[in-house]
Amino acid sequence: MFEAGAVLKKEFGEEAVFDFSLGNPDLEPPESFSNVLRSFAEKPFSGMHGYMSNAGFDETRDAVASFLSLEQGVSITGSHIIMTCGAGGALNIALKTLMNPGDRVLAQAPCFMEYKFYTENHSGRFEMIPPNEDLDLDIDALERAIDRRTAAIIINSPNNPTGRVYSEKTIRELSSMLERKEREIGRAVYLICDEPYRKIAFDGVTVPSVLRLYRNTLVATSYSKDLSIPGERIGWLAVHPEADDSENIVNGAVLCNRILGYVNAPALMQRVVGKIPGAAVDVSRYQSRRDMMMEGLSAIGYEFQKPSGTFYLFPKVPGGDDLAFVDALKDERILTVPGRGFGAPGYFRIAFCVPERTITDSMKGFNRVFRKFMG
Amino acid sequence: MFEAGAVLKKEFGEEAVFDFSLGNPDLEPPESFSNVLRSFAEKPFSGMHGYMSNAGFDETRDAVASFLSLEQGVSITGSHIIMTCGAGGALNIALKTLMNPGDRVLAQAPCFMEYKFYTENHSGRFEMIPPNEDLDLDIDALERAIDRRTAAIIINSPNNPTGRVYSEKTIRELSSMLERKEREIGRAVYLICDEPYRKIAFDGVTVPSVLRLYRNTLVATSYSKDLSIPGERIGWLAVHPEADDSENIVNGAVLCNRILGYVNAPALMQRVVGKIPGAAVDVSRYQSRRDMMMEGLSAIGYEFQKPSGTFYLFPKVPGGDDLAFVDALKDERILTVPGRGFGAPGYFRIAFCVPERTITDSMKGFNRVFRKFMG
Repeated sequence: MFEAGAVLKKEFGEEAVFDFSLGNPDLEPPESFSNVLRSFAEKPFSGMHGYMSNAGFDETRDAVASFLSLEQGVSITGSHIIMTCGAGGALNIALKTLMNPGDRVLAQAPCFMEYKFYTENHSGRFEMIPPNEDLDLDIDALERAIDRRTAAIIINSPNNPTGRVYSEKTIRELSSMLERKEREIGRAVYLICDEPYRKIAFDGVTVPSVLRLYRNTLVATSYSKDLSIPGERIGWLAVHPEADDSENIVNGAVLCNRILGYVNAPALMQRVVGKIPGAAVDVSRYQSRRDMMMEGLSAIGYEFQKPSGTFYLFPKVPGGDDLAFVDALKDERILTVPGRGFGAPGYFRIAFCVPERTITDSMKGFNRVFRKFMG
Repeated sequence: MFEAGAVLKKEFGEEAVFDFSLGNPDLEPPESFSNVLRSFAEKPFSGMHGYMSNAGFDETRDAVASFLSLEQGVSITGSHIIMTCGAGGALNIALKTLMNPGDRVLAQAPCFMEYKFYTENHSGRFEMIPPNEDLDLDIDALERAIDRRTAAIIINSPNNPTGRVYSEKTIRELSSMLERKEREIGRAVYLICDEPYRKIAFDGVTVPSVLRLYRNTLVATSYSKDLSIPGERIGWLAVHPEADDSENIVNGAVLCNRILGYVNAPALMQRVVGKIPGAAVDVSRYQSRRDMMMEGLSAIGYEFQKPSGTFYLFPKVPGGDDLAFVDALKDERILTVPGRGFGAPGYFRIAFCVPERTITDSMKGFNRVFRKFMG
């Protein structure tokens, strides 16, 4: 996707391409990030860029744990945090640790397709639960899909691509269902919460803490979206201290960090994020873009859910053919992603982490293609 | 190992522990590194920490390719370079790209044991050729081990743990043997050269370019040792432009960078290393430590090969029981690694990337344990 955009921009000029295809945040990192990075760069010290434990620097792990405990009303210490190469690294070490070969991992569509690769990297089988009408968690369908080979369920809230924040009620229902199924099948079913968008939530919405509601929980996240530093590959994995086999999972994840070749999360970025717990970009700017995007598309006639978080909008495709629709948008130099890329054909994803002008200037094209597909 | 050292240092004090267990370079990064890092930190620009192509920034890939072409007398462009999460990342994406499940990967002992994990991560079978008397490449034994399932051979020169630089004659013999075997078995047998110590070579020794001598070559490396930044996880993979399936290998490796969850090499470090091709720490300091270490251990009676590179020495264990010997050294608070950790029982590894005082102050302990085992 990165390359496709680059090719078009080279041909038509940066201004003439409306690239909504990538979750590459365009806001600058918060000032605190840049200040702390500069202060490390200006006063280097011995071992600043050296190896540390594969789990990360103790100071950073402790800082993450303190903030997490405060933010989510849980009690977790640095010994249950593993610093990782972004959320991608966190998910891979979690999956390699939790699965035996042939084990199954479930996720609710629409969701990030890399989950499938990440599961298969470690000889697991990935299964996607088809989307329901509301694009919400389908607890019954998940329940039916769980069997004795099910090692984990990945959930992602705020959700890429829908922007939905699963409600506390839904998480409680999920949690009760999982506890019941665990007793039934006689094994732990871990919930892996992929939460890189936790801080990108709108209208005062609070993202429920899954750690507080379900014991067998692992949280995977990154600073990519919070701090607008996706290229730096820095994130963490948290293991619930009371999860079944909690110590083994932590030790396994640390070992996997090493043997999967990540070795450790990048040192300098660990040092920086450890100094600025809770820092985030100005989320109100994403909220105002969401509002602009929604207003423009509604006026045309597009249908969608109002995103409570992330910087994605996931409208229905008029007529339902998402591939043809995304192709037609591309002819208008509007780049988006077909819903089937998230297991939800009939929709398409717009990433609105782009300048305001890109949003306003794209509306003519969105209108023309809508008219064409509404016949 | 990192943890074991930390525990002892906590108990006895930093000064009283002689930690030769880790390849964690103690020299500071070169000034050029710190200067470039500072200049980026002081003048941040839009997108500095953002996503780029999974292969890395074009400027960095081009800079790596230019330097590599010059250094090794080969002709390679940025399109054959993939920026990676250190050499660990480079080896993993190379192995996942080259192997079908069940394929075999060979390496000559003594070698880095992570090769086994890296191979098994991607459902391959790892086989280690036992060490010969000279601790050199055993071309005949390698030849006997190659069969139709052999996808690749990993070699590491300068070698961890021996410090040996394989000679050009040896590489030429290896290359001829491989070409012959390829014709015989009807498949490419790729040579993966793990070269993080290329710039740490002593006495004016030149490390032969395998890229110049064998077409089916991939080079994996990192800046960890050159620049003393092992915690930053920055390196690259180069694919010989004329290797069989060269384009597919590059594309596969880029895809694997993404789906293995590395996504891309850390952005800021890519930017920094792209500006300082060829920069390295002052290698003469490692050479003088090597000389101190060799002098001290020779005088006691230890036997070893003179390392031509790296910061490792790999002496024979008096009596041959490397586990017992390393344990006895530990009682003297001298931390080393048993040879069987590299597939070569009867030896032990000393990492001399430590302050000079650690070397001199450890000699009494090395002497006592030697006397005890010579009994």
